[in-house]
Amino acid sequence: MSRRPEQSVADLVGRAREGDARSVGRLISLVEDESPLLREVMTALAPHAGHAHVVGITGSPGVGKSTSTSALVTELRAGGKRVGILAVDPSSPFSGGALLGDRVRMQEHALDPEVYIRSMASRGHLGGLAWTTPQALRVLDAAGCDVILVETVGVGQSEIEIAGLADTTVVLLAPGMGDGIQAAKAGILEIGDLYVVNKADRDGADQVRRDLRSMLALAQRPEGAWQPPIVATVAARGEGLDEVAAELEKHLAWLRSSGELAKRRTRRARDEIEAIAVTALRARWGDVHGRSELDDLAAAVGAGESDPYTAADELLATFTD
Amino acid sequence: MSRRPEQSVADLVGRAREGDARSVGRLISLVEDESPLLREVMTALAPHAGHAHVVGITGSPGVGKSTSTSALVTELRAGGKRVGILAVDPSSPFSGGALLGDRVRMQEHALDPEVYIRSMASRGHLGGLAWTTPQALRVLDAAGCDVILVETVGVGQSEIEIAGLADTTVVLLAPGMGDGIQAAKAGILEIGDLYVVNKADRDGADQVRRDLRSMLALAQRPEGAWQPPIVATVAARGEGLDEVAAELEKHLAWLRSSGELAKRRTRRARDEIEAIAVTALRARWGDVHGRSELDDLAAAVGAGESDPYTAADELLATFTD
Repeated sequence: MSRRPEQSVADLVGRAREGDARSVGRLISLVEDESPLLREVMTALAPHAGHAHVVGITGSPGVGKSTSTSALVTELRAGGKRVGILAVDPSSPFSGGALLGDRVRMQEHALDPEVYIRSMASRGHLGGLAWTTPQALRVLDAAGCDVILVETVGVGQSEIEIAGLADTTVVLLAPGMGDGIQAAKAGILEIGDLYVVNKADRDGADQVRRDLRSMLALAQRPEGAWQPPIVATVAARGEGLDEVAAELEKHLAWLRSSGELAKRRTRRARDEIEAIAVTALRARWGDVHGRSELDDLAAAVGAGESDPYTAADELLATFTD
Repeated sequence: MSRRPEQSVADLVGRAREGDARSVGRLISLVEDESPLLREVMTALAPHAGHAHVVGITGSPGVGKSTSTSALVTELRAGGKRVGILAVDPSSPFSGGALLGDRVRMQEHALDPEVYIRSMASRGHLGGLAWTTPQALRVLDAAGCDVILVETVGVGQSEIEIAGLADTTVVLLAPGMGDGIQAAKAGILEIGDLYVVNKADRDGADQVRRDLRSMLALAQRPEGAWQPPIVATVAARGEGLDEVAAELEKHLAWLRSSGELAKRRTRRARDEIEAIAVTALRARWGDVHGRSELDDLAAAVGAGESDPYTAADELLATFTD
């Protein structure tokens, strides 16, 4: 890759705001690389963000997450929306590479200039998703995306984190993907704003909808709260995605009218600020007086010579000195 | 539950060290509840920890994780080991409850006084597993466990975190659980010290072993590094677990002789100290001058009036003032 050496952050931000895909990609790379330029980038982008509807898409492997995302993009594009797609892989702190499988399934949108597709590894630092994802979202948001779809690979903690980052969380299910206990374990029944039963043409889809409906009915929701709808789709044939898009619009309208949108965005900002502050602190206490204070303390705790609370006190003391 | 009100931390720690299961359980509850007594508990336990071999067990849902854990416990008990089992559910920050399914499968060990079984929810605070798990491990370790099996529910980030906490990481696979891309996505090929192909009597098990062997062969391992073995099991019939137990012993011997054991334990202590320090900081900056400074900063960033880097600076400034 050739880079123009004199390209300034202001140039890059300017072109990204005009919708230049390469500049958008370059800015997300800066996020991924934890570039020292990020501060300047984020300061420049912050006033231009806040327009995009951030939609998290979660579900166990095999429910058709990538196919559904791709079909939803087709639907949103038909409605004239500019779409960003962020595929986050929190389970791969090592490789840092792109998710070839997902990219392949997204090929049909690869040439559409109004669709930004980006795979991103969230590496192993404290904060994980909380650190990189909000910043990548800000880039896509400031670049004029109307909707940003955030898809995670894998299940577990990452789903909960995505729910914390998104304005709207879509939970995908499919028949034959394990029983109710499995679903309850994954905690997905507590995070969805919209439930999609994909592969609705298969045996057992009705049962999944019935189970889901009764489980959702058990949840105590206060008056005026959002009642998560259940939509049936066959993503591979593009069926039901119009209804998904319509429900996303409804949820966004509810978020606005209820004041919940501002609340969720404040929460997202809170997590992001905290992650940045903690990262700054870690950088400081990782290298105090030319050596790693934390490593010394950890060795003492590991050897049973100290305990972690005393060590944490000592760590904080070196910082405030 | 009735609690003896005058029960001191020293009493509790003393009885836990003698192997009293109720006291061990009570101490782990203190960890789970983030009790203010924890500092005292951990200070008392620290000198008595360091004996146990901490074994992380990971694998996708459906590979037979609980069955394998239970069969491994049977094998370890036959060898006279005292065993602790920690089932961590990082995907459920909301419910905080026990994992009924897993407990049911562990019933056969429920009456064995030399086996401690504990399900633990790792709630949604920053640090997650890093905060609670090492402390629960220290409790079981100081209580005289020879081996502690840590099992997570779900896949993803939690697997990587468990690998960071364990002395030895066992990755379970089974035929029919998805293709190689799925495995590579989960990042499991980079974290295992021992690979177990369970359900080895089923079609496709040989293929899984072959695929695994070729993928592991691709990894560049430096000279003297551990070469992860592959063991075939049928956990439901208890077959192959003797070999798993033997490989665990071999890995522990290698960890000792290579100096890697001390390294891994220092890393675990490092994460734990950091998590405690960050938790202490968060408590402080969540409530500065009687109001939440962080909430105000987050609202400003959420509204596009500030950017997260400037906000993080301001947050750290209020702390060091």
